[in-house]
Amino acid sequence: PPKTEEEDDVAQAGVNKASKGGIIYGDYLQLDKVLGAQVLQSELKANKIHDEHLFIVTHQAYELWFKQILYELDSVRDIFISGHVRDERNMLKVNTRIHRIVMILRLLVDQFAVLETMTALDFFDFREYLSPASGFQSLQFRLLENRIGVPDNLRVPYNRRHYRDNFKGHDSELLQATEQEPSLLKLVEEWLERTPGLEVEGFNFWERLEINIFEGLKAEKEKIEKMMDGEDKQELLEEVVKQKELFTSLFDEKRHDHLVSKGERRLSYKALQGALMIYFFREEPRFQVPFQLLNSLMDIDTLMTKWRYNHVCMVHRMIGSKAGTGGSSGYHYLRSTVSDRYKVFVDLFNLATFLVPRNWVPKLNPSVHTFLYTAECCDSSYCSSEDSD
Amino acid sequence: PPKTEEEDDVAQAGVNKASKGGIIYGDYLQLDKVLGAQVLQSELKANKIHDEHLFIVTHQAYELWFKQILYELDSVRDIFISGHVRDERNMLKVNTRIHRIVMILRLLVDQFAVLETMTALDFFDFREYLSPASGFQSLQFRLLENRIGVPDNLRVPYNRRHYRDNFKGHDSELLQATEQEPSLLKLVEEWLERTPGLEVEGFNFWERLEINIFEGLKAEKEKIEKMMDGEDKQELLEEVVKQKELFTSLFDEKRHDHLVSKGERRLSYKALQGALMIYFFREEPRFQVPFQLLNSLMDIDTLMTKWRYNHVCMVHRMIGSKAGTGGSSGYHYLRSTVSDRYKVFVDLFNLATFLVPRNWVPKLNPSVHTFLYTAECCDSSYCSSEDSD
Amino acid sequence: PPKTEEEDDVAQAGVNKASKGGIIYGDYLQLDKVLGAQVLQSELKANKIHDEHLFIVTHQAYELWFKQILYELDSVRDIFISGHVRDERNMLKVNTRIHRIVMILRLLVDQFAVLETMTALDFFDFREYLSPASGFQSLQFRLLENRIGVPDNLRVPYNRRHYRDNFKGHDSELLQATEQEPSLLKLVEEWLERTPGLEVEGFNFWERLEINIFEGLKAEKEKIEKMMDGEDKQELLEEVVKQKELFTSLFDEKRHDHLVSKGERRLSYKALQGALMIYFFREEPRFQVPFQLLNSLMDIDTLMTKWRYNHVCMVHRMIGSKAGTGGSSGYHYLRSTVSDRYKVFVDLFNLATFLVPRNWVPKLNPSVHTFLYTAECCDSSYCSSEDSD
Amino acid sequence: PPKTEEEDDVAQAGVNKASKGGIIYGDYLQLDKVLGAQVLQSELKANKIHDEHLFIVTHQAYELWFKQILYELDSVRDIFISGHVRDERNMLKVNTRIHRIVMILRLLVDQFAVLETMTALDFFDFREYLSPASGFQSLQFRLLENRIGVPDNLRVPYNRRHYRDNFKGHDSELLQATEQEPSLLKLVEEWLERTPGLEVEGFNFWERLEINIFEGLKAEKEKIEKMMDGEDKQELLEEVVKQKELFTSLFDEKRHDHLVSKGERRLSYKALQGALMIYFFREEPRFQVPFQLLNSLMDIDTLMTKWRYNHVCMVHRMIGSKAGTGGSSGYHYLRSTVSDRYKVFVDLFNLATFLVPRNWVPKLNPSVHTFLYTAECCDSSYCSSEDSD
Repeated sequence: PPKTEEEDDVAQAGVNKASKGGIIYGDYLQLDKVLGAQVLQSELKANKIHDEHLFIVTHQAYELWFKQILYELDSVRDIFISGHVRDERNMLKVNTRIHRIVMILRLLVDQFAVLETMTALDFFDFREYLSPASGFQSLQFRLLENRIGVPDNLRVPYNRRHYRDNFKGHDSELLQATEQEPSLLKLVEEWLERTPGLEVEGFNFWERLEINIFEGLKAEKEKIEKMMDGEDKQELLEEVVKQKELFTSLFDEKRHDHLVSKGERRLSYKALQGALMIYFFREEPRFQVPFQLLNSLMDIDTLMTKWRYNHVCMVHRMIGSKAGTGGSSGYHYLRSTVSDRYKVFVDLFNLATFLVPRNWVPKLNPSVHTFLYTAECCDSSYCSSEDSD
Repeated sequence: PPKTEEEDDVAQAGVNKASKGGIIYGDYLQLDKVLGAQVLQSELKANKIHDEHLFIVTHQAYELWFKQILYELDSVRDIFISGHVRDERNMLKVNTRIHRIVMILRLLVDQFAVLETMTALDFFDFREYLSPASGFQSLQFRLLENRIGVPDNLRVPYNRRHYRDNFKGHDSELLQATEQEPSLLKLVEEWLERTPGLEVEGFNFWERLEINIFEGLKAEKEKIEKMMDGEDKQELLEEVVKQKELFTSLFDEKRHDHLVSKGERRLSYKALQGALMIYFFREEPRFQVPFQLLNSLMDIDTLMTKWRYNHVCMVHRMIGSKAGTGGSSGYHYLRSTVSDRYKVFVDLFNLATFLVPRNWVPKLNPSVHTFLYTAECCDSSYCSSEDSD
Repeated sequence: PPKTEEEDDVAQAGVNKASKGGIIYGDYLQLDKVLGAQVLQSELKANKIHDEHLFIVTHQAYELWFKQILYELDSVRDIFISGHVRDERNMLKVNTRIHRIVMILRLLVDQFAVLETMTALDFFDFREYLSPASGFQSLQFRLLENRIGVPDNLRVPYNRRHYRDNFKGHDSELLQATEQEPSLLKLVEEWLERTPGLEVEGFNFWERLEINIFEGLKAEKEKIEKMMDGEDKQELLEEVVKQKELFTSLFDEKRHDHLVSKGERRLSYKALQGALMIYFFREEPRFQVPFQLLNSLMDIDTLMTKWRYNHVCMVHRMIGSKAGTGGSSGYHYLRSTVSDRYKVFVDLFNLATFLVPRNWVPKLNPSVHTFLYTAECCDSSYCSSEDSD
Repeated sequence: PPKTEEEDDVAQAGVNKASKGGIIYGDYLQLDKVLGAQVLQSELKANKIHDEHLFIVTHQAYELWFKQILYELDSVRDIFISGHVRDERNMLKVNTRIHRIVMILRLLVDQFAVLETMTALDFFDFREYLSPASGFQSLQFRLLENRIGVPDNLRVPYNRRHYRDNFKGHDSELLQATEQEPSLLKLVEEWLERTPGLEVEGFNFWERLEINIFEGLKAEKEKIEKMMDGEDKQELLEEVVKQKELFTSLFDEKRHDHLVSKGERRLSYKALQGALMIYFFREEPRFQVPFQLLNSLMDIDTLMTKWRYNHVCMVHRMIGSKAGTGGSSGYHYLRSTVSDRYKVFVDLFNLATFLVPRNWVPKLNPSVHTFLYTAECCDSSYCSSEDSD
């Protein structure tokens, strides 16, 4: 289509800066390294198989993005560890970076579609050359799991051995270190425990919630008892009994600790209270961003689990029920890791079980709830430093 | 959730092969290189800006995938150049690899969503450190355009200079070479020219099509002339005149060559005939895979153009109407490249203009159309070699 | 940006046809029906909850697409049932429509991202009004499963009852009918059984494959036995034994039938042979499109299973571990359906277990393999009718 | 895979509620209407073309989602119009719903991939039956544009006529009404004008910013003047002059109003100031959610424009350069609408042109910036009503 001269002028108005020296694109990105790292084992063995190149590039792309995820994750963990999170101005950064992880994971889930253009038959042609290399040996993926908070004791073993036995020397130490360092789960837990409104001498959310719920259930029961007899009445009464049991369990700290010890809950009793408070008062100005954060954490869990599942599907297609190149049981091993055991923030999902009608939620007294629209910021020097990482 | 022991047994039945030596994951993928190539310019200048890491990783991921696309593209071009394409068994490979390029491009179009988690403000903080590096200097992207078949003379200039002036030494020579080598467009053109059924002494598709179309139009005109007078009649007659003009242009080789010289058509007159023949007889066994190929080529064009457009959108957001880091006019330069000038297979799209009712398509005489269900295969030695690349 | 007048002229050159009468957009699409079907139960109960609208629209969009999938599926099944599939010209149609189903399913998997913008708390507000409606009652989804070929006896029961008990009258009969009608699985099975090359008096693929494999394994064993002693030797020998067992099972028809009776295999012994033959000779002209079809069938299985898994993830988030609105155990019920039991074409995946080195595949004698590049077409009248549906 | 009995128990623990009456799935979703609205024109004309069904379903799915977008958009506009937006608790709702629109648009951009499984040839077979129906007649799409804020005077005409001339009676009136009602753009503008910190008697952001910028530029100029002579020096000085011109334009209200009159800017001078203030102080607690909102508004613009572009690509493929079914110039008309004229929030993009180094941004005095971490909430009755829509 013809263009006006004026348009052309605008599009061509630049000055070519590169001619004057300084860094250029390829050096900036170190493309000699990145694009020089595709060595086909099949070619080394004098039997070049075309599709091995795709296999390599895809895995390198995964590792590149894993590095980015770890980078974001560590920066967020630093904000929590350093206490900077107490200045609520830093919540934007936390939220943005966690959201970025979500967006990357979304891409990685879709990325399987590219590798799936390789059929089982294409893979078979070079598969023997890969042994014993295996995706199980991805250090970054294990670091990622540890830093989010997959607990050591809930991991599915790998060929009946501890996952860390598959790593040596520095890598093994690095993994052990990340098992000791505070995971995102632990840091979020501490932060939730400080949720404003939980204090007994203040709003005392938890006690007031307990009272409201059991009064609510009592009222409901009374209402049902006034109904005419019939099958429905009995059923409704049974439902109230069930609800009562359910909520009794919620307010039973011992039971909570028991579930934690079994790995069925992961957050402390106090942190759980904080999360539920944020759920109920999510519209209060101070809780809007924290509420988004809790949702993004569930996104991460969901996407990690979808990633695992898509991986399983691809492996099933590639090798049927054969053993993996690293010697694992392949499909069956991977299938066993698509489990709630690997859902780090499972408590945030399960809180949906404890929702109650809006009128049971403790009311915020106008004179009291000021703290929910006044953020905590410190004006000291360290707060103003934007990017001290 | 509890598992049976039997299930556990299956999932844990592997043997850990890595303990015995041999290549492992990280070495296979050369992760030391790939994951050691993220150097932040802002950090070198003692002002580390967090988001520069994302900027680097995203561009590296793009370049990795560009390498894969070039790899597939070259392997397909080799099949055409070597003449292996005459053995129709190789069409599966051609089709699969072109389709793989489509799948990669689809991922790359989506990948902008990740970089878009960086706001203009985040970018501004490290943008000055990048100068004069610029995406315009991506060698692989220019190679890609050349190998698909973006013609030199239709390129939008860059700051009023030839695009190749922005590359030096080896890179510039490489680009010049790819301008001379047969592009995918040229190779597809030659292949289309050989479409069975075009031969004058055989089915003679083109002449028969011309006859049918003009007879059809004549019959239509006569039918309309018998109608009662009225506004509609006049309009329908005008429509027939327009159609006649349109189809006259299709069968006018001189006009075709004129359009080619202006860059509005790209395929030879003969190749265009082949493409239209494949369109009309796409269900014939020999044409099913070629028809898919033509569709995939349009997919590539469409996705490249969507990639350009998404790039424009992102740049608009990042730098408003500022100049690019390389000195170009940024947004306005990029905007001007989202143009049909860069659609290599534009003729395949425009063929939609020349579709006709099914009963105008020349009929295949049963005794004649055997050639459309008998593939050409050679049983000589080179044909059986599957992956000689 | 300014435009030339010429450009404007082109863009504005149309004639407004709608002013002359005839069908217009809204009537064509019956938008009065489609856009008049959003009735919020919460609003009827005088407690309008904003997010219920999204809930309704999302489910309607799912059902619209299910209808399209069923439409494509039925048209493909008709081509098989009517025998039109014997004219290989119809394979393009089969392939294109199955591929379209794949593309729709891909959209549906992504579509969960929209409903996930609704939090558990938003859902809780109107959830009670929905009871006892439940996604389990989606007739189209059950029809879809039946028509693809989910077998009745492998279905997970629903609240300990047969899935069909949840449907009444006409719907229940419709479901029962689809259980009797040939599913896509059965039709593909019959088609695979006719794969050219299986005939004992012809190429006799199966017997020749068996011979080659066991000769190959024997040769391998002998080679290993000549090696020096050591741990490796023993291991390699064990591996050969395992392989021998594996392949013995492949050629054991009784064992196959036993696995079929347990639901672990679904295709007949003969059909499995056909599929494997297509795998090995996928590059032969006649097998290129059939090979794509087999891949698309696996795509359907994979995407259906991803759809189930994404559904599970969403439900976990919405209701935690509560019961579903229809009374099911919700999350736990759905989780149990993400199982290989629901993978209809599981045999196509598992064939990856039986791949062998290329030199073990029976060689095609040049004079013999003509049948692999000559398609079967009939020139009778019904073949030429393109869209008789 | 075998399951424990316990697991089965959990998955089957539900009670079938549907058997007791009440609304069921199909009635709730009014599937009789939604799934009964696919009438093929080609079938009515006794020439059923298979692919018309896909064409109908795809467009219905688009319209369903357009309805949802309008629903969310209207609810957000209501929050602004009613003044509820002054209670910052409502910002979560605004943000969530705008984000939901973003997610829907993302799906709609991808949805073209499904319709693209239909080739030009398939479309040609039923295209004549559709005339004069045309996507241009989509009432909801025009309403959507108007409610977001596409201004009447910037619209590309359609066949040289006003877009509204293509609608009759009630539809035309509805469109005219939405041109008068406050668009999202206007409402966001008013809201931005109230950004805390703009007040001259308060923080006086704008004046302080102007002072800082020109002092900054002066200092830069002086620094350059002290440099040794050379080509670079001259260039840097020219750059400062350009910058000075640029920022002079920013603080020139008359020039701003002139640009508004030409349609190159859309927001009032005051609103632009508010937006820039939010950009610079985005980390302040009160601005975190507003900053997200501004980003989501750009997302909407970007996705609407991607939608238009994908639409253009699809149309090019379907009809080449033929006229549209409604009589428009088809491809060329649509191409002309992929323009910044249709970017409603273009000012938010262009603000990237006016970013300055962090140390030029006016400092927040600790005693002063309290207002940036204290939200405005009203405790009156209307605020507490969560969902009064």
